[in-house]
Amino acid sequence: MSNIVVQKYGGTSVGSVERIKNVAKRIIKKKESGHQILVVVSAMGKSTDDLVKLAYDISPTPPKREMDRLLSTGEQVSISLLSMALQSMGYDAISFTGPQVGIRTSGRHTKSRIEGIDTTKILEALHEDKIVIVAGFQGVNENDDVTTLGRGGSDTSAVALACVLDATCEIYTDVEGIYGVDPRLYDKAKKLDTVSYEEMLEMASLGAGVMHPRAIELASKYNTKIVVASSEFDVPGTIINKGGNHMEGQSITGLAIDNDELMITIRDIPFDLNITSQFFSQFANKSINIDMISQGAPVKGLINISFTAPVQDLADARKILNCFEEKYPGIGVIINENVSKLSVVGVGMRSQSGVAAKFFQLLTDNNIQILMITTSEIRISCVIKTTDRDIAVTATAKAFDL
Amino acid sequence: MSNIVVQKYGGTSVGSVERIKNVAKRIIKKKESGHQILVVVSAMGKSTDDLVKLAYDISPTPPKREMDRLLSTGEQVSISLLSMALQSMGYDAISFTGPQVGIRTSGRHTKSRIEGIDTTKILEALHEDKIVIVAGFQGVNENDDVTTLGRGGSDTSAVALACVLDATCEIYTDVEGIYGVDPRLYDKAKKLDTVSYEEMLEMASLGAGVMHPRAIELASKYNTKIVVASSEFDVPGTIINKGGNHMEGQSITGLAIDNDELMITIRDIPFDLNITSQFFSQFANKSINIDMISQGAPVKGLINISFTAPVQDLADARKILNCFEEKYPGIGVIINENVSKLSVVGVGMRSQSGVAAKFFQLLTDNNIQILMITTSEIRISCVIKTTDRDIAVTATAKAFDL
Repeated sequence: MSNIVVQKYGGTSVGSVERIKNVAKRIIKKKESGHQILVVVSAMGKSTDDLVKLAYDISPTPPKREMDRLLSTGEQVSISLLSMALQSMGYDAISFTGPQVGIRTSGRHTKSRIEGIDTTKILEALHEDKIVIVAGFQGVNENDDVTTLGRGGSDTSAVALACVLDATCEIYTDVEGIYGVDPRLYDKAKKLDTVSYEEMLEMASLGAGVMHPRAIELASKYNTKIVVASSEFDVPGTIINKGGNHMEGQSITGLAIDNDELMITIRDIPFDLNITSQFFSQFANKSINIDMISQGAPVKGLINISFTAPVQDLADARKILNCFEEKYPGIGVIINENVSKLSVVGVGMRSQSGVAAKFFQLLTDNNIQILMITTSEIRISCVIKTTDRDIAVTATAKAFDL
Repeated sequence: MSNIVVQKYGGTSVGSVERIKNVAKRIIKKKESGHQILVVVSAMGKSTDDLVKLAYDISPTPPKREMDRLLSTGEQVSISLLSMALQSMGYDAISFTGPQVGIRTSGRHTKSRIEGIDTTKILEALHEDKIVIVAGFQGVNENDDVTTLGRGGSDTSAVALACVLDATCEIYTDVEGIYGVDPRLYDKAKKLDTVSYEEMLEMASLGAGVMHPRAIELASKYNTKIVVASSEFDVPGTIINKGGNHMEGQSITGLAIDNDELMITIRDIPFDLNITSQFFSQFANKSINIDMISQGAPVKGLINISFTAPVQDLADARKILNCFEEKYPGIGVIINENVSKLSVVGVGMRSQSGVAAKFFQLLTDNNIQILMITTSEIRISCVIKTTDRDIAVTATAKAFDL
């Protein structure tokens, strides 16, 4: 493990001049404790949202290469301001954009993936005792065009940098750590001291919000320790590592709600693997992440398939579905946007039986209709109506002591 | 001359979503007339000013490398939005940043100069029938850091691109062309049909505002035709070329006012060339452009020197002056910020005598005190009190029929 600490500050933490100055003070405190510091920052406050709005005011379908260029400016603003703040406090600092520091990406614009990082410039600057500030959320592709990493991209940037630098990654955010349930959904939610990559990965994938699953995946691959903590208060956060929290009797560590998915059902598809695989590859070609899939047994040679997909891909999804309907006029398509995905996660599920039964009974007791179910070894997810969400969260959190 | 037209739109012209769409329509019109188009844009409206304010809210002396990064974001926003607008109207367009398109610069951050441009990517995109959009005001230095070109930098970017592409350069702005006098100062001002590089260079250097002298210098060097016209109305603008406007009897083509200079007087400097040259090289080292210089004859081995310098360099200038005062305690320094530089320009001065006499008589008749005078072959400049400015402008414009 190197002496380098990677700190990541989100948009809220650098949302104003005052906050940027506070972040600078926190960085200096860490630096003074004897560490080499690399800081990854997001765009200020809601500035990315403002840019997205501008783009859609110009065009209903803004081209993605230009969208990436537009969105990548937000982080360029925050890195330069943070560097100015540190330098005005007497500390040597230097900012780099993603392209500049060699964060090479592949894949489509607005959804790129990190291929590799060239650490030369970073190590050089750290060696010169500078505080290095890197723009999160962005990289550069093989055409020398700036790319963005999609949702949670700044976390991914920070963890990727921590991985290649063999550093600890501190994620500073507007919550005090990882909670078993989102405190905005359940105000008695408990903060976790530690959580395993595995559990966090499931929770993040499920829209627990605090961290993007890609970041956790990366950290897990390189065994990089992540600390999630408040950017405002000096209280211990949550450590994400290999071990995690294996308390006896704790069958479920966390609960997650995802409101950003829609449920699509296609009825009466001819039961032919070629057709279904062709269909799903069209979604894959458009980089639409299909998540839960359920398929019933064929009836008279026809099957029904339900699956969930991100709400923001609705337009693209609809196009694919329309083509599909034209090609197979017999099928029926139902898109349900008013759904939420409720998931419970815990490595304890492996050793304890009856967790699923308890969970389903709980929902049934509260008159909550389950529209779809999928499970993994350490997770149970179900799609419910958004109107049932709050009752379901409170009941589950109480029953499993989250 | 190639078939390429370089168009440049300033900040006001792309100041809103609506205006960006209008600019897109103008570009398309030109494209439809059979030209290959390269567009250079500035940052939207006052966005650069907003960024500057942010920087100074963070630090009283923002480091210039970070300042360049911060300021360069404004143009990245406008190029991506303009590209989106053109693509939404069905035209293929592609945006490039200064660094991306290989606008190599040298010199200090915030005041860099263009060293050269690699046209490979541009020509490739034009060949593919794309409308190419390039961020003005920025380039990249030998450290791979983004740089900005200082005041009027976008004009310089546009003209430089027109020069290397052997294209005409159309500068679209919020005025309808070049006027003999700034219409904001004199409402009966007349628009010029043509003006020579030489005259324009003098007027631009004098703060006539419409175009930066560097841009004119470049155009003159490459003999690149510039058209300055309104971005809003379809009326003929002013052509800047080699010939210019040589109407018989027109001794003065234009008048310019510069309010962004301050006058510095140093009294009782020992009359020693080493001292004065040492002094002026300190200003040069800080990249402060000293403009008018006047020095009287030595009296008892001491001389007085007056000169003008840009107002924005006041802080740097004061530092140098303070050091100088410490080193030579006998000297006295007077900084006068409430001055304006009034200049009259015209190639006709060469062939007509008495222009200077007429001009000075005019000022004297209007009780205007002349604090300093410098002249060139086609220009007379004098520093006056800012309170005398308006009377001086009106009197001169009337007398010389501008």
